[in-house]
Amino acid sequence: MPRIRAASVAEHRDQTMTRLLDAFEAALEEEGFAEITLAGVAERAGIARNTVYNYAKDKQALLVAAVRRAMLAVLADLDAQTDVAVSAEEQLLAVIDRLLADFSGGAPRLLVLQALQGSLLAGPGEAEVPRLDSRIEDIVRRGIETGEFRPSSDVALTVAMMAGAAEAAVRALSRGDRSLAHITREVKTVLLRAVRA
Amino acid sequence: MPRIRAASVAEHRDQTMTRLLDAFEAALEEEGFAEITLAGVAERAGIARNTVYNYAKDKQALLVAAVRRAMLAVLADLDAQTDVAVSAEEQLLAVIDRLLADFSGGAPRLLVLQALQGSLLAGPGEAEVPRLDSRIEDIVRRGIETGEFRPSSDVALTVAMMAGAAEAAVRALSRGDRSLAHITREVKTVLLRAVRA
Repeated sequence: MPRIRAASVAEHRDQTMTRLLDAFEAALEEEGFAEITLAGVAERAGIARNTVYNYAKDKQALLVAAVRRAMLAVLADLDAQTDVAVSAEEQLLAVIDRLLADFSGGAPRLLVLQALQGSLLAGPGEAEVPRLDSRIEDIVRRGIETGEFRPSSDVALTVAMMAGAAEAAVRALSRGDRSLAHITREVKTVLLRAVRA
Repeated sequence: MPRIRAASVAEHRDQTMTRLLDAFEAALEEEGFAEITLAGVAERAGIARNTVYNYAKDKQALLVAAVRRAMLAVLADLDAQTDVAVSAEEQLLAVIDRLLADFSGGAPRLLVLQALQGSLLAGPGEAEVPRLDSRIEDIVRRGIETGEFRPSSDVALTVAMMAGAAEAAVRALSRGDRSLAHITREVKTVLLRAVRA
Protein backbone atom coordinates (compact mmCIF):
# COMPACT_ATOMS: atom_id res chain seq x y z
CA MET A 1 0.00 0.00 0.00
CA PRO A 2 1.51 3.39 -0.94
CA ARG A 3 2.22 5.83 1.86
CA ILE A 4 -0.30 8.71 2.01
CA ARG A 5 1.64 11.93 1.69
CA ALA A 6 0.45 15.21 3.21
CA ALA A 7 0.12 16.76 -0.26
CA SER A 8 -2.30 14.11 -1.45
CA VAL A 9 -4.33 14.32 1.76
CA ALA A 10 -4.73 18.07 1.22
CA GLU A 11 -5.61 17.42 -2.42
CA HIS A 12 -8.20 14.84 -1.44
CA ARG A 13 -9.77 17.26 1.02
CA ASP A 14 -9.90 19.98 -1.64
CA GLN A 15 -11.58 17.64 -4.09
CA THR A 16 -14.14 16.52 -1.52
CA MET A 17 -14.91 20.13 -0.55
CA THR A 18 -15.31 21.02 -4.23
CA ARG A 19 -17.81 18.18 -4.67
CA LEU A 20 -19.69 19.29 -1.54
CA LEU A 21 -19.88 22.91 -2.71
CA ASP A 22 -21.00 21.90 -6.21
CA ALA A 23 -23.71 19.75 -4.62
CA PHE A 24 -24.67 22.60 -2.29
CA GLU A 25 -25.02 25.05 -5.21
CA ALA A 26 -27.16 22.57 -7.15
CA ALA A 27 -29.34 22.01 -4.06
CA LEU A 28 -29.65 25.77 -3.51
CA GLU A 29 -30.89 26.26 -7.04
CA GLU A 30 -33.31 23.34 -7.03
CA GLU A 31 -34.58 23.36 -3.45
CA GLY A 32 -33.78 26.76 -1.93
CA PHE A 33 -31.77 27.33 1.24
CA ALA A 34 -34.62 26.63 3.67
CA GLU A 35 -35.13 23.08 2.29
CA ILE A 36 -31.46 22.10 2.25
CA THR A 37 -30.11 19.58 4.77
CA LEU A 38 -26.45 18.74 5.28
CA ALA A 39 -27.27 15.02 4.87
CA GLY A 40 -29.02 15.74 1.55
CA VAL A 41 -26.00 17.65 0.24
CA ALA A 42 -23.69 14.81 1.28
CA GLU A 43 -25.87 12.27 -0.55
CA ARG A 44 -25.95 14.47 -3.66
CA ALA A 45 -22.15 14.71 -3.55
CA GLY A 46 -21.72 10.95 -3.03
CA ILE A 47 -20.04 11.46 0.34
CA ALA A 48 -20.76 9.45 3.47
CA ARG A 49 -23.09 11.17 5.91
CA ASN A 50 -20.57 11.01 8.75
CA THR A 51 -17.72 12.32 6.62
CA VAL A 52 -19.54 15.56 5.77
CA TYR A 53 -19.16 16.82 9.34
CA ASN A 54 -15.37 16.89 8.83
CA TYR A 55 -15.98 19.54 6.18
CA ALA A 56 -18.87 21.66 7.49
CA LYS A 57 -20.64 21.71 10.83
CA ASP A 58 -23.98 22.86 9.35
CA LYS A 59 -25.54 24.21 6.16
CA GLN A 60 -24.77 27.81 7.17
CA ALA A 61 -21.06 26.89 7.14
CA LEU A 62 -21.49 25.43 3.64
CA LEU A 63 -23.23 28.63 2.54
CA VAL A 64 -20.34 30.74 3.79
CA ALA A 65 -17.82 28.45 2.06
CA ALA A 66 -19.80 28.58 -1.19
CA VAL A 67 -20.09 32.38 -1.15
CA ARG A 68 -16.39 32.59 -0.35
CA ARG A 69 -15.55 30.36 -3.33
CA ALA A 70 -17.79 32.40 -5.68
CA MET A 71 -16.31 35.70 -4.50
CA LEU A 72 -12.72 34.43 -4.74
CA ALA A 73 -13.39 33.33 -8.33
CA VAL A 74 -14.65 36.82 -9.16
CA LEU A 75 -11.70 38.48 -7.43
CA ALA A 76 -9.17 36.20 -9.19
CA ASP A 77 -10.71 37.20 -12.52
CA LEU A 78 -10.55 40.86 -11.59
CA ASP A 79 -6.89 40.49 -10.58
CA ALA A 80 -6.11 38.89 -13.94
CA GLN A 81 -7.62 41.95 -15.63
CA THR A 82 -5.89 44.51 -13.46
CA ASP A 83 -3.09 45.41 -15.81
CA VAL A 84 -1.60 48.86 -15.26
CA ALA A 85 -1.69 49.41 -19.02
CA VAL A 86 -5.51 49.27 -18.86
CA SER A 87 -7.40 52.48 -18.04
CA ALA A 88 -9.53 52.74 -14.87
CA GLU A 89 -12.61 53.10 -17.07
CA GLU A 90 -11.84 49.84 -18.88
CA GLN A 91 -11.26 48.12 -15.55
CA LEU A 92 -14.58 49.36 -14.20
CA LEU A 93 -16.43 48.16 -17.31
CA ALA A 94 -14.72 44.76 -17.03
CA VAL A 95 -15.81 44.46 -13.39
CA ILE A 96 -19.41 45.25 -14.32
CA ASP A 97 -19.33 42.68 -17.13
CA ARG A 98 -17.94 40.01 -14.86
CA LEU A 99 -20.27 40.68 -11.95
CA LEU A 100 -23.44 40.80 -13.99
CA ALA A 101 -22.48 37.64 -15.91
CA ASP A 102 -22.02 35.90 -12.56
CA PHE A 103 -25.36 37.13 -11.31
CA SER A 104 -27.17 35.94 -14.39
CA GLY A 105 -26.55 32.24 -13.83
CA GLY A 106 -27.88 29.92 -11.17
CA ALA A 107 -26.57 29.47 -7.67
CA PRO A 108 -23.53 31.80 -7.80
CA ARG A 109 -25.95 34.61 -8.61
CA LEU A 110 -27.96 33.90 -5.48
CA LEU A 111 -24.84 33.52 -3.42
CA VAL A 112 -23.14 36.70 -4.48
CA LEU A 113 -26.38 38.66 -4.28
CA GLN A 114 -26.96 37.49 -0.74
CA ALA A 115 -23.35 38.25 0.13
CA LEU A 116 -23.71 41.77 -1.22
CA GLN A 117 -26.95 42.33 0.64
CA GLY A 118 -25.50 40.77 3.76
CA SER A 119 -28.89 39.18 4.29
CA LEU A 120 -27.86 35.58 4.83
CA LEU A 121 -24.40 36.18 6.17
CA ALA A 122 -25.02 38.33 9.20
CA GLY A 123 -23.39 36.56 12.09
CA PRO A 124 -20.55 34.08 12.27
CA GLY A 125 -18.66 33.45 9.07
CA GLU A 126 -19.28 36.86 7.53
CA ALA A 127 -15.74 38.05 8.17
CA GLU A 128 -14.35 35.15 6.12
CA VAL A 129 -16.08 36.33 2.95
CA PRO A 130 -14.07 38.82 0.88
CA ARG A 131 -15.89 42.02 -0.07
CA LEU A 132 -15.90 43.58 -3.51
CA ASP A 133 -16.19 47.18 -2.39
CA SER A 134 -12.50 47.66 -1.66
CA ARG A 135 -11.54 46.31 -5.09
CA ILE A 136 -13.89 48.75 -6.83
CA GLU A 137 -12.62 51.52 -4.56
CA ASP A 138 -9.07 50.82 -5.81
CA ILE A 139 -10.21 51.26 -9.41
CA VAL A 140 -12.05 54.50 -8.65
CA ARG A 141 -9.05 55.91 -6.75
CA ARG A 142 -6.74 55.05 -9.64
CA GLY A 143 -9.14 56.76 -12.08
CA ILE A 144 -9.11 59.89 -9.92
CA GLU A 145 -5.30 59.86 -9.88
CA THR A 146 -5.08 59.51 -13.66
CA GLY A 147 -7.69 62.25 -14.15
CA GLU A 148 -10.19 59.90 -15.82
CA PHE A 149 -12.64 60.18 -12.92
CA ARG A 150 -13.85 63.25 -11.04
CA PRO A 151 -12.11 64.09 -7.77
CA SER A 152 -14.05 63.08 -4.65
CA SER A 153 -13.50 63.64 -0.97
CA ASP A 154 -15.57 60.53 -0.18
CA VAL A 155 -14.67 57.68 -2.52
CA ALA A 156 -16.11 55.10 -0.11
CA LEU A 157 -19.56 56.72 -0.27
CA THR A 158 -19.43 56.99 -4.06
CA VAL A 159 -18.54 53.29 -4.31
CA ALA A 160 -21.33 52.37 -1.87
CA MET A 161 -23.81 54.23 -4.09
CA MET A 162 -22.42 52.53 -7.21
CA ALA A 163 -22.83 49.16 -5.50
CA GLY A 164 -26.39 50.08 -4.47
CA ALA A 165 -27.26 50.97 -8.05
CA ALA A 166 -25.72 47.72 -9.32
CA GLU A 167 -27.61 45.70 -6.71
CA ALA A 168 -30.89 47.26 -7.83
CA ALA A 169 -30.05 46.24 -11.40
CA VAL A 170 -29.27 42.70 -10.23
CA ARG A 171 -32.67 42.54 -8.54
CA ALA A 172 -34.24 43.61 -11.86
CA LEU A 173 -32.16 40.92 -13.60
CA SER A 174 -33.37 38.26 -11.20
CA ARG A 175 -36.99 39.06 -12.11
CA GLY A 176 -36.13 37.81 -15.59
CA ASP A 177 -38.07 40.30 -17.75
CA ARG A 178 -34.95 42.02 -19.14
CA SER A 179 -31.90 40.57 -20.92
CA LEU A 180 -28.44 40.43 -19.37
CA ALA A 181 -27.05 42.48 -22.28
CA HIS A 182 -29.66 45.22 -21.77
CA ILE A 183 -29.12 45.46 -18.01
CA THR A 184 -25.32 45.37 -18.37
CA ARG A 185 -25.49 48.27 -20.84
CA GLU A 186 -27.67 50.35 -18.51
CA VAL A 187 -25.47 49.65 -15.46
CA LYS A 188 -22.34 50.65 -17.40
CA THR A 189 -23.97 53.87 -18.55
CA VAL A 190 -25.15 54.89 -15.08
CA LEU A 191 -21.97 53.92 -13.19
CA LEU A 192 -19.62 55.54 -15.70
CA ARG A 193 -21.69 58.72 -15.63
CA ALA A 194 -21.46 58.67 -11.85
CA VAL A 195 -17.64 58.77 -11.80
CA ARG A 196 -16.38 60.12 -15.12
CA ALA A 197 -14.57 63.45 -14.98
CA MET B 1 -75.62 65.33 26.63
CA PRO B 2 -74.81 66.48 23.08
CA ARG B 3 -75.57 64.12 20.24
CA ILE B 4 -72.44 62.47 18.78
CA ARG B 5 -72.28 63.36 15.10
CA ALA B 6 -70.61 61.11 12.53
CA ALA B 7 -68.05 63.84 11.83
CA SER B 8 -66.92 64.01 15.42
CA VAL B 9 -66.75 60.21 15.67
CA ALA B 10 -64.47 60.14 12.63
CA GLU B 11 -62.43 62.97 14.11
CA HIS B 12 -62.11 61.17 17.42
CA ARG B 13 -60.94 58.02 15.64
CA ASP B 14 -58.36 60.02 13.68
CA GLN B 15 -57.04 61.63 16.85
CA THR B 16 -56.80 58.28 18.64
CA MET B 17 -54.99 56.72 15.68
CA THR B 18 -52.57 59.67 15.57
CA ARG B 19 -51.79 59.18 19.28
CA LEU B 20 -51.27 55.45 18.71
CA LEU B 21 -48.93 56.02 15.77
CA ASP B 22 -46.95 58.69 17.65
CA ALA B 23 -46.61 56.23 20.56
CA PHE B 24 -45.62 53.44 18.16
CA GLU B 25 -42.89 55.61 16.57
CA ALA B 26 -41.52 56.55 19.98
CA ALA B 27 -41.53 52.89 21.04
CA LEU B 28 -39.82 51.88 17.79
CA GLU B 29 -37.03 54.36 18.42
CA GLU B 30 -36.56 53.52 22.09
CA GLU B 31 -37.23 49.77 22.17
CA GLY B 32 -36.93 48.48 18.60
CA PHE B 33 -39.64 46.57 16.73
CA ALA B 34 -38.92 43.17 18.32
CA GLU B 35 -39.55 44.50 21.84
CA ILE B 36 -42.78 46.34 21.05
CA THR B 37 -46.12 45.01 22.31
CA LEU B 38 -49.53 46.36 21.33
CA ALA B 39 -50.44 46.71 25.02
CA GLY B 40 -47.28 48.74 25.65
CA VAL B 41 -48.06 51.10 22.78
CA ALA B 42 -51.64 51.56 24.10
CA GLU B 43 -50.31 52.40 27.56
CA ARG B 44 -47.79 54.88 26.10
CA ALA B 45 -50.64 56.52 24.13
CA GLY B 46 -52.93 56.64 27.18
CA ILE B 47 -55.50 54.42 25.51
CA ALA B 48 -57.32 51.52 27.17
CA ARG B 49 -55.86 48.13 26.35
CA ASN B 50 -59.16 46.81 24.96
CA THR B 51 -59.75 49.88 22.82
CA VAL B 52 -56.48 49.46 20.92
CA TYR B 53 -57.81 46.37 19.13
CA ASN B 54 -60.42 48.58 17.44
CA TYR B 55 -57.50 50.36 15.75
CA ALA B 56 -54.93 47.66 15.00
CA LYS B 57 -55.07 43.89 15.29
CA ASP B 58 -51.33 43.53 15.98
CA LYS B 59 -48.06 45.46 15.96
CA GLN B 60 -47.44 44.56 12.31
CA ALA B 61 -50.67 46.42 11.44
CA LEU B 62 -49.42 49.45 13.41
CA LEU B 63 -46.12 49.29 11.54
CA VAL B 64 -47.91 49.31 8.17
CA ALA B 65 -50.10 52.24 9.29
CA ALA B 66 -47.05 54.17 10.52
CA VAL B 67 -45.10 53.61 7.30
CA ARG B 68 -48.19 54.60 5.33
CA ARG B 69 -48.47 57.85 7.32
CA ALA B 70 -44.76 58.66 6.86
CA MET B 71 -44.90 57.97 3.12
CA LEU B 72 -48.11 60.00 2.64
CA ALA B 73 -46.44 62.95 4.39
CA VAL B 74 -43.48 62.71 2.01
CA LEU B 75 -45.75 62.40 -1.03
CA ALA B 76 -47.91 65.35 0.06
CA ASP B 77 -44.76 67.47 0.33
CA LEU B 78 -43.61 66.34 -3.09
CA ASP B 79 -47.02 67.19 -4.57
CA ALA B 80 -46.82 70.67 -3.07
CA GLN B 81 -43.47 71.13 -4.83
CA THR B 82 -44.59 69.75 -8.17
CA ASP B 83 -45.22 73.02 -9.94
CA VAL B 84 -45.00 72.84 -13.73
CA ALA B 85 -42.95 76.05 -13.67
CA VAL B 86 -40.18 74.15 -11.86
CA SER B 87 -37.65 72.21 -13.93
CA ALA B 88 -37.36 68.42 -13.62
CA GLU B 89 -33.85 68.88 -12.23
CA GLU B 90 -35.11 71.17 -9.46
CA GLN B 91 -37.89 68.68 -8.68
CA LEU B 92 -35.40 65.83 -8.44
CA LEU B 93 -33.14 67.84 -6.11
CA ALA B 94 -36.15 68.74 -3.94
CA VAL B 95 -37.13 65.07 -3.67
CA ILE B 96 -33.59 64.12 -2.61
CA ASP B 97 -33.56 66.90 0.01
CA ARG B 98 -36.90 65.83 1.44
CA LEU B 99 -36.15 62.11 1.50
CA LEU B 100 -32.75 62.42 3.12
CA ALA B 101 -34.06 64.88 5.72
CA ASP B 102 -36.76 62.34 6.60
CA PHE B 103 -34.22 59.56 6.86
CA SER B 104 -31.99 61.54 9.17
CA GLY B 105 -34.42 61.70 12.06
CA GLY B 106 -35.74 59.03 14.37
CA ALA B 107 -38.53 56.58 13.72
CA PRO B 108 -39.71 57.88 10.32
CA ARG B 109 -36.20 57.17 9.06
CA LEU B 110 -36.44 53.56 10.13
CA LEU B 111 -39.94 53.25 8.78
CA VAL B 112 -39.29 54.67 5.35
CA LEU B 113 -36.02 52.77 5.06
CA GLN B 114 -37.76 49.52 5.85
CA ALA B 115 -40.54 50.36 3.41
CA LEU B 116 -38.00 51.02 0.66
CA GLN B 117 -36.16 47.83 1.37
CA GLY B 118 -39.41 45.91 1.64
CA SER B 119 -37.80 43.99 4.46
CA LEU B 120 -40.48 44.36 7.12
CA LEU B 121 -43.45 44.77 4.85
CA ALA B 122 -43.41 41.58 2.83
CA GLY B 123 -46.79 40.01 3.28
CA PRO B 124 -50.17 41.45 4.17
CA GLY B 125 -50.40 45.23 4.28
CA GLU B 126 -47.66 45.91 1.78
CA ALA B 127 -50.08 46.90 -0.96
CA GLU B 128 -51.51 49.66 1.27
CA VAL B 129 -48.19 51.49 1.42
CA PRO B 130 -47.62 53.98 -1.40
CA ARG B 131 -44.32 53.62 -3.28
CA LEU B 132 -41.99 56.46 -4.18
CA ASP B 133 -40.62 54.95 -7.37
CA SER B 134 -43.52 55.98 -9.59
CA ARG B 135 -43.29 59.59 -8.36
CA ILE B 136 -39.58 59.75 -9.22
CA GLU B 137 -40.30 58.04 -12.54
CA ASP B 138 -42.73 60.87 -13.37
CA ILE B 139 -40.03 63.45 -12.75
CA VAL B 140 -37.47 61.59 -14.87
CA ARG B 141 -39.96 61.16 -17.73
CA ARG B 142 -40.77 64.86 -17.64
CA GLY B 143 -37.06 65.72 -17.72
CA ILE B 144 -36.61 63.50 -20.78
CA GLU B 145 -39.54 65.22 -22.49
CA THR B 146 -38.14 68.69 -21.79
CA GLY B 147 -34.66 67.62 -22.93
CA GLU B 148 -33.09 68.17 -19.49
CA PHE B 149 -32.43 64.45 -19.02
CA ARG B 150 -30.93 61.95 -21.42
CA PRO B 151 -33.37 59.77 -23.39
CA SER B 152 -33.78 56.23 -22.05
CA SER B 153 -35.64 53.20 -23.29
CA ASP B 154 -35.87 51.88 -19.72
CA VAL B 155 -36.80 54.65 -17.30
CA ALA B 156 -38.02 52.14 -14.71
CA LEU B 157 -34.57 50.49 -14.53
CA THR B 158 -32.82 53.88 -14.32
CA VAL B 159 -35.09 54.89 -11.44
CA ALA B 160 -34.52 51.54 -9.69
CA MET B 161 -30.75 52.14 -9.89
CA MET B 162 -31.17 55.71 -8.60
CA ALA B 163 -33.21 54.37 -5.67
CA GLY B 164 -30.56 51.71 -5.00
CA ALA B 165 -27.83 54.37 -4.90
CA ALA B 166 -29.95 56.53 -2.57
CA GLU B 167 -30.65 53.57 -0.28
CA ALA B 168 -26.92 52.88 -0.01
CA ALA B 169 -26.40 56.52 0.99
CA VAL B 170 -29.16 56.22 3.59
CA ARG B 171 -27.43 53.17 5.05
CA ALA B 172 -24.23 55.24 5.27
CA LEU B 173 -26.26 58.03 6.92
CA SER B 174 -27.68 55.63 9.50
CA ARG B 175 -24.14 54.66 10.56
CA GLY B 176 -23.77 58.26 11.72
CA ASP B 177 -20.17 59.00 10.72
CA ARG B 178 -21.09 61.48 7.97
CA SER B 179 -23.27 64.60 8.11
CA LEU B 180 -26.68 64.86 6.45
CA ALA B 181 -25.46 67.85 4.40
CA HIS B 182 -22.44 65.92 3.11
CA ILE B 183 -24.43 62.83 2.15
CA THR B 184 -27.19 64.92 0.55
CA ARG B 185 -24.60 66.71 -1.60
CA GLU B 186 -23.05 63.41 -2.76
CA VAL B 187 -26.44 61.84 -3.55
CA LYS B 188 -27.47 64.90 -5.59
CA THR B 189 -24.20 64.80 -7.53
CA VAL B 190 -24.42 61.11 -8.36
CA LEU B 191 -28.15 61.03 -9.21
CA LEU B 192 -28.03 64.15 -11.37
CA ARG B 193 -25.01 62.80 -13.24
CA ALA B 194 -26.94 59.58 -13.83
CA VAL B 195 -29.81 61.30 -15.64
CA ARG B 196 -28.61 64.67 -16.95
CA ALA B 197 -28.51 65.03 -20.74
